[in-house]
Amino acid sequence: MFNTIGIITKPNDSVSDGIAEELSAFLQNKGVGVVLGNELIAEQADLIIVVGGDGTLLNTARTFVDNNIPILGVNLGRLGFLADVSVGKMLDIVAQVLQGEFTKEDRCLLSCQIEQDGQVIHQSVALNDAVVNRQDALKMIEFDVYIDDKFVNNQRADGLIITTPTGSTAYALSSGGPIMHPGVNAIGLVSICPHTMSHRPLLVPGGSEVVVRVKDAGAGVSVHIDGQASFPIELGQEVRVRQHGSFVHLLHPKDYDYFEIIRSKLHWGSKLS
Amino acid sequence: MFNTIGIITKPNDSVSDGIAEELSAFLQNKGVGVVLGNELIAEQADLIIVVGGDGTLLNTARTFVDNNIPILGVNLGRLGFLADVSVGKMLDIVAQVLQGEFTKEDRCLLSCQIEQDGQVIHQSVALNDAVVNRQDALKMIEFDVYIDDKFVNNQRADGLIITTPTGSTAYALSSGGPIMHPGVNAIGLVSICPHTMSHRPLLVPGGSEVVVRVKDAGAGVSVHIDGQASFPIELGQEVRVRQHGSFVHLLHPKDYDYFEIIRSKLHWGSKLS
Amino acid sequence: MFNTIGIITKPNDSVSDGIAEELSAFLQNKGVGVVLGNELIAEQADLIIVVGGDGTLLNTARTFVDNNIPILGVNLGRLGFLADVSVGKMLDIVAQVLQGEFTKEDRCLLSCQIEQDGQVIHQSVALNDAVVNRQDALKMIEFDVYIDDKFVNNQRADGLIITTPTGSTAYALSSGGPIMHPGVNAIGLVSICPHTMSHRPLLVPGGSEVVVRVKDAGAGVSVHIDGQASFPIELGQEVRVRQHGSFVHLLHPKDYDYFEIIRSKLHWGSKLS
Amino acid sequence: MFNTIGIITKPNDSVSDGIAEELSAFLQNKGVGVVLGNELIAEQADLIIVVGGDGTLLNTARTFVDNNIPILGVNLGRLGFLADVSVGKMLDIVAQVLQGEFTKEDRCLLSCQIEQDGQVIHQSVALNDAVVNRQDALKMIEFDVYIDDKFVNNQRADGLIITTPTGSTAYALSSGGPIMHPGVNAIGLVSICPHTMSHRPLLVPGGSEVVVRVKDAGAGVSVHIDGQASFPIELGQEVRVRQHGSFVHLLHPKDYDYFEIIRSKLHWGSKLS
Repeated sequence: MFNTIGIITKPNDSVSDGIAEELSAFLQNKGVGVVLGNELIAEQADLIIVVGGDGTLLNTARTFVDNNIPILGVNLGRLGFLADVSVGKMLDIVAQVLQGEFTKEDRCLLSCQIEQDGQVIHQSVALNDAVVNRQDALKMIEFDVYIDDKFVNNQRADGLIITTPTGSTAYALSSGGPIMHPGVNAIGLVSICPHTMSHRPLLVPGGSEVVVRVKDAGAGVSVHIDGQASFPIELGQEVRVRQHGSFVHLLHPKDYDYFEIIRSKLHWGSKLS
Repeated sequence: MFNTIGIITKPNDSVSDGIAEELSAFLQNKGVGVVLGNELIAEQADLIIVVGGDGTLLNTARTFVDNNIPILGVNLGRLGFLADVSVGKMLDIVAQVLQGEFTKEDRCLLSCQIEQDGQVIHQSVALNDAVVNRQDALKMIEFDVYIDDKFVNNQRADGLIITTPTGSTAYALSSGGPIMHPGVNAIGLVSICPHTMSHRPLLVPGGSEVVVRVKDAGAGVSVHIDGQASFPIELGQEVRVRQHGSFVHLLHPKDYDYFEIIRSKLHWGSKLS
Repeated sequence: MFNTIGIITKPNDSVSDGIAEELSAFLQNKGVGVVLGNELIAEQADLIIVVGGDGTLLNTARTFVDNNIPILGVNLGRLGFLADVSVGKMLDIVAQVLQGEFTKEDRCLLSCQIEQDGQVIHQSVALNDAVVNRQDALKMIEFDVYIDDKFVNNQRADGLIITTPTGSTAYALSSGGPIMHPGVNAIGLVSICPHTMSHRPLLVPGGSEVVVRVKDAGAGVSVHIDGQASFPIELGQEVRVRQHGSFVHLLHPKDYDYFEIIRSKLHWGSKLS
Repeated sequence: MFNTIGIITKPNDSVSDGIAEELSAFLQNKGVGVVLGNELIAEQADLIIVVGGDGTLLNTARTFVDNNIPILGVNLGRLGFLADVSVGKMLDIVAQVLQGEFTKEDRCLLSCQIEQDGQVIHQSVALNDAVVNRQDALKMIEFDVYIDDKFVNNQRADGLIITTPTGSTAYALSSGGPIMHPGVNAIGLVSICPHTMSHRPLLVPGGSEVVVRVKDAGAGVSVHIDGQASFPIELGQEVRVRQHGSFVHLLHPKDYDYFEIIRSKLHWGSKLS
C-alpha cells in the first residue's frame, strides 16, 4: 500500500530524532523505503509520518499541501488533536497502516492572500487559522469584514481569527468560538477581545470568501498562519481568505473517534460536583 | 409566475386580517387567484404570503413543509429575521415578486422523532430548533448525546438546543451559540446552563443524526419545537434529530442581504464608546 | 468550646443516618452533648454538624439563620463547596474542632421578599441565590431591574439569578457568572438566556437593594430559593432582595483553602493539551 | 468652594485647547483662579477639570493620585464612562459645581509593583487595570496567580487583566469580564484568551494582594497600565497588585446616574427583535 514513507521530525529535538530512527529501522525491516528531507519526500513519498506533535504536523501539512501525500502523526507527549498516535503504540499502528488498516480523513485548509491594489503580495496556506492580529499589545485595531463582497461589519478588537473546523479547537476556542466537527463545511470568524458586547462567532459556508480590510492599524497589524508564521500588513492592504483547493489527508488508527479525542482533550467528563 | 397565492395571517389579530384583505384585493386586481385556509392552500397555492411575523412564518413553514410552496413573509412590526417585508413596502415588493423579481433561498429544517423501544411515537419538523428542556425550573436534567451512533458526552444542564442555521439567531443565541449563515450545512448543539464549565457549542455536519437519551428526567422533560409546541418525554425514550428531507423556500426582496438583517437585528454597529 | 452539638442528616438517607450515629457516639464519648431535631438544636446547640452534602447544608443554614450557631459540613460523596469534611476524616477533624482548631468563615445570605401593593406577602432567606424564573419552558418573561430605586434595565430572558458570593459557584456559574470569593461584599445579577447579546453579569455593592418587577409573566413566574424551594409570583408583585442581617458561620478544617476547593471542583488544572 | 481650578487638556489637540480657553475665561470671570501645568496644579488647585475624554482623565487621575484633588471630566466626543460632562453643558455644569451642586464619587485605584528578588524595580498606579500581557502575538505566556500568598492557579493565556470596578467596563469587558459597580470593593481577574475552557473571571476582596509570577515568557511579557503605559518584565520577576492607599475623587453632575451611563454606553436597551 505504502512503498516509500517520508519521516518528519520536530526540529532540534533529540527525542524526536531517536524515535524517528527506531521507526525508520522498523519500516526498512518491513521492506518499506524511507526518505528524509522535504525535497525527496515531496518527490517520492506516498505517506508521511510526523514524529513530534500538533505543531510539527501543522507545519508539515502546509509544506506538502499540494503534494497529495497522506500524513500520520506520532505525538511525543500527550495525544494531540491532530497527531493521535502515541509513541508506545507507534510500531503497532504503523504496522496496521501498512496493511491498509486505518481511517482516512480529509481536512480542509485556508488559502490566505495579502493584497495591495489588486496585486497579491503574499500568499499562505493554513490548516488551523489565519489571524489578523495587532502587533502592539496596547492598541486595538479596526477593520471591516466582507463575505463574498458583502459587508458584514466593522469591528474594533485585538484581532480576528478566521478558522477551519480543524482550528476550532485551537486559538479560536480560547477566544470563545464553537467546536466545529471536521466534517462541517464552514469557515469560522471569531473576534479577539472585541470592543463591543454584541459580537458573536460567525460561521459562513465553506465556499465563502472572507475579506478583512484594516481601517486603523494601531501600532501595527500582522497576519498569523497557524500561530507559526506571521506577516505584517499595511493600511490599504487587504486580507483575502478562502478554502484552499486541496485537502490534507490525515491517517488515523482504525478505531479513530473524533469525539473521544475531544472529550479527552477538553475534559468533557468534568462535572462541577 | 405565481397564479394562485395563499394568504396566512396571524391568528386572532385584526391588524393582520386588515392587511391581508388589502393584499388580497391588490392580488385579485392583478388577476392573481387568492386562496385561504390550510387545505385549499396546500392543494392550489404556488406561493404563500404570511402576514404576521417570524412566529407566524415559523408555524406556516412547518405546516406546509412537504408541499414545496415558496413563502414570502410580511412583518407587522419591526422586520423579522424571516419575515422581512415591511407593511409599508408590501404592495411594491409583492408586485416585484409577481414579475419574478425576488431572491429565493432554501432553508433546511430538522426532523425530530421521539422514540421508544425503536418505535417512533412522535414526529415533528422544526425550522428553528428542537429543544430538550426540563419542565420544572428547580431540577436539572441529565442526558447523553450521540452523533451518528457515536457517544459525544454526558451532560447535566437545564436543556439542550439542537438548532438549524435559521435557529442560530433565535433561542440558541440567547444560550451562547454562534451565528450560522443559512448557507452553512450544519446542525448546532447548544447546552442551556450546563453544569460544567467545559461545554461549548458544537457544530456537526448537516447530514448527521443527533440522538439525545435522557438519563435523569428531574421533574419532567419536554421537547420543544420552534418554541411553539412541546411534547413531554419519559425516561427510556430517546430524541432523534436529523435534517428534514425537504427545504423551506423563502422568498425575499430582490436586494435581500442577510448580513444587513443581522446587523440591524443584533445592533452590530454598537460600539462601546 | 462546644458543649452541645446538633446533628442534621440528609433526609431519608440511611447512609447519612449511620454516619451520624457513629459521630454521635464519638461525641458523647468525648463528653459532648448531642441534640437532634430542629427545635432542640435551635434552643441548645452551640455547633451544628451537617452529615450530608451541600444541599443539606444549604437547607440547614436557612433553617437556623437567626440562631447564630456555627455549622460544620460532612460530605458523604465528593467534597462539596460548603460541606468540606470527608467521612474518612470526620472524626479527626471533629476532634480538632472540639479543641478549637478550625477556620471560621462568615458567609452572607440574601433576604428575599415578595411584595404586593407595598405589603410583604412572602419572605425567604437564601445562602446561594434567589432566582426569578419562568415556570413554563416555552415562554420568556420580561422584567425591570432596579438597584437602590434606580432603574438598571429591562430584560427579556428565561430568568434572573440574584446571587451571593457563595452562590457564584452554583447556578450562576452555569449561566455564565463570575466566581466571587466569599470575602467579596457584593451581590451578583446574572441573566438566564437573555434575549439580547448585550447583557453581562453585574456586580453591585453588598449593601444594595435589588428589586425585580415582572412586566410580562409569560406562562407563569416563580422565585426559587437556593434551588430548593419555589414561590409563584403574579404580575404586579415585586421581588425585593437585599443582604440578610446575620451571617452563616461556617467552620472548616484548620488548613482550609478556598482556592484549593475551587481548583478541585472546577478542574482548574485542566489544560487543553 | 473651589478657589483655584487646574485645567488639563488632551495633548496636541487644538479643539481641546480652544474649549479650555473658553472655560478659563468663564472661570476667571467668576473670580475663580485658573492654573495650568502639572506642578502648579499639584501645588495650588483644589479642583481639576479635564477637557478631553476618558483617556485624558485616566492619565490625569494617575498623575495627581496622591494630591487629593477632585476631578471633573469634560468629554469632547460622545460621553465617556468617566468624563461625563458634554461640551454643550460644560459651562452650566461648572457653574453648578462652583455652587456646590455635584455628586462626588470615590474610585479606587490599583498599585502595581514589579519586583525582583524582593526589590521593587518599578511601581505604577492604575485607575482601570494592570494587564500582564504577551508582547509577541504568536506566543502564549504561562503564569501562576496568588491571592494573599495562596496559590490560585496556573494559566496559559495571552494575558491576565487585573481590574478595578472602574476598569470593568474597559478592556476587561472585551475579555468577558462582568460589570462591577464602582461601589463594589473588589479586584477582578480576567484572563485573556485562556488556553483552557475552565477559566472564569474571578472577583477577590478589595483588600487582597494579587501576585502574578510568569513561568514562561514566550517572546516577551509586559505589564500595561490603563492601556496607556507599558513596562517589560523578565522571567523571575513578579507583579504585585493591591489597592492603592488613596482614591480618585470624581465629580459628576448632580443628577449623575451610573446605570444610565452604562445603559447608554453598552446599549442595554437593544433587544434582539
